[in-house]
Amino acid sequence: MSVLVVGSVALDTIKTPFGRKKDILGGSATFSSVSASLFCPVNLVAVVGKDFPKKYIKFFNSKGVNTQGLTIEEGKTFRWEGEYGWDFADPKTISTDLNVFASFNPKLPIQYRKAKHIFLANIDPRIQEKVLRQIAKPRLVACDTMNYWIEKKKRQLIKLLKKVDVFLVNESEAKEFTTEANLITAGKNLLKFGPKVIIIKKGEHGVFLFSHNHIFAIPAFLLETVYDPTGAGDTFAGGFMGYLTKCKKYTKNHLRNAVVYASVMATFAVEDFSLKKLSKVTIADLNKRIKEFRKYTTF
Amino acid sequence: MSVLVVGSVALDTIKTPFGRKKDILGGSATFSSVSASLFCPVNLVAVVGKDFPKKYIKFFNSKGVNTQGLTIEEGKTFRWEGEYGWDFADPKTISTDLNVFASFNPKLPIQYRKAKHIFLANIDPRIQEKVLRQIAKPRLVACDTMNYWIEKKKRQLIKLLKKVDVFLVNESEAKEFTTEANLITAGKNLLKFGPKVIIIKKGEHGVFLFSHNHIFAIPAFLLETVYDPTGAGDTFAGGFMGYLTKCKKYTKNHLRNAVVYASVMATFAVEDFSLKKLSKVTIADLNKRIKEFRKYTTF
Repeated sequence: MSVLVVGSVALDTIKTPFGRKKDILGGSATFSSVSASLFCPVNLVAVVGKDFPKKYIKFFNSKGVNTQGLTIEEGKTFRWEGEYGWDFADPKTISTDLNVFASFNPKLPIQYRKAKHIFLANIDPRIQEKVLRQIAKPRLVACDTMNYWIEKKKRQLIKLLKKVDVFLVNESEAKEFTTEANLITAGKNLLKFGPKVIIIKKGEHGVFLFSHNHIFAIPAFLLETVYDPTGAGDTFAGGFMGYLTKCKKYTKNHLRNAVVYASVMATFAVEDFSLKKLSKVTIADLNKRIKEFRKYTTF
Repeated sequence: MSVLVVGSVALDTIKTPFGRKKDILGGSATFSSVSASLFCPVNLVAVVGKDFPKKYIKFFNSKGVNTQGLTIEEGKTFRWEGEYGWDFADPKTISTDLNVFASFNPKLPIQYRKAKHIFLANIDPRIQEKVLRQIAKPRLVACDTMNYWIEKKKRQLIKLLKKVDVFLVNESEAKEFTTEANLITAGKNLLKFGPKVIIIKKGEHGVFLFSHNHIFAIPAFLLETVYDPTGAGDTFAGGFMGYLTKCKKYTKNHLRNAVVYASVMATFAVEDFSLKKLSKVTIADLNKRIKEFRKYTTF
């Protein structure tokens, strides 16, 4: 079983208290693909410009990420520049240049169209839907978004959510989408838009999962050294989907374990810039940290 | 085994999105005493003015809170007025009138001086220390504080911490005290001041416990209806201490269970104004909610 991921592949310029890195590999589809690739093959759908370094395509392939769906178009790759303070809260966006993403019209390679597990990583909901429409019979569709689309394209997003099984949002997005200050109320409210499962990511404060008959909550696996939180949410989503490709059913326990694996995967993303640490993680590293996590949350 | 609690007994005026209540029973020692009283007898040390309603003293006694150490002095009872927004984050303080607390010089009744379990609830560290000095051989001393004392009386607080076993702080206090943005670093740093156990309360985001060889983390038990968060931290502390009076040793497991019981106790405090809900909680209510909590956090 593989996961199909659509989202952004970007060149990020990031400043944190630990330094500034220019044009490093980033983007929602990048982090989620590489994260999912620890569990299963990944089919990537995205667009980059002619300036996109070949070495990154080789890197994707080396991780088992199929780049047949990564279109290379005339123009420049999507760029984002952001800055984090010491608290590593939401970054200040310095600039966003959509570039080739502004006009991206994804056409899936034939063999992608039979995909069963789909992750619609954060990108314009119009693009997310265009991809989803090309897939014959998905079995599990998860979708992420960001405040920008909630503010600018809520109608398209609501339309999309009807076809989505799992909706992943962070705390502020859940509150903004529902205009509810209480997280349980927000979670229940989001379920009404169609998804069977709502996952609210709270960064260093952990994760909540809501379904119609089930709530699950875990704290975050605390790290003493966070270098760059970019991509943590996408890494979470990739780990979540990757884990579930291994499952024949999606019971409460499968979903809980997927959330735990996803959370721990995300910790590797933030321990260095770009995918420097994440790309080196092995299943043994992951299991070791999950064991520690279990140890410090069990009562 | 009993718990001795020193802290404030106050008349609070509180505004939340659900209404405004004037001169209701509040104060750090009030919430923690009543919370601990579900587990064991409590000896209260505090001061009130002549205006303090007799019915509240009867109420304390009805809960097994001994008020021999509650001095009634000429003047007015300590008053605090605060306002919460929809997010129920830190309240805006409208006014604080220390009144009789400004000159409080606690003298413990003889039978209080043999206390084994002491909770120094949030109050001037000078008063906390005066109480502690009068106790012959304490077995377990826990201490709470607030940003105000960290800013105004850090030296006294540091002196006090040398004699404290468990230091309870909330997230912003931990960060302010240590000037560390990372919670693990802050927790480790606080251990250097003397306490063997640091508990960092994060409200709706759960709790962390740190000791020299042990970390424990749980999310909060989520509630859909929060009416008034005042006293949640004090209720936590009272439950924590109350639970530990039942323990002959303080192993990792005892501490973990104490944190879980404490967290769940705190949820009852916030479901109504003042102690309206908390005062009616039974052990059966508590155990029921702990069972639910376990159900939604286990993986």
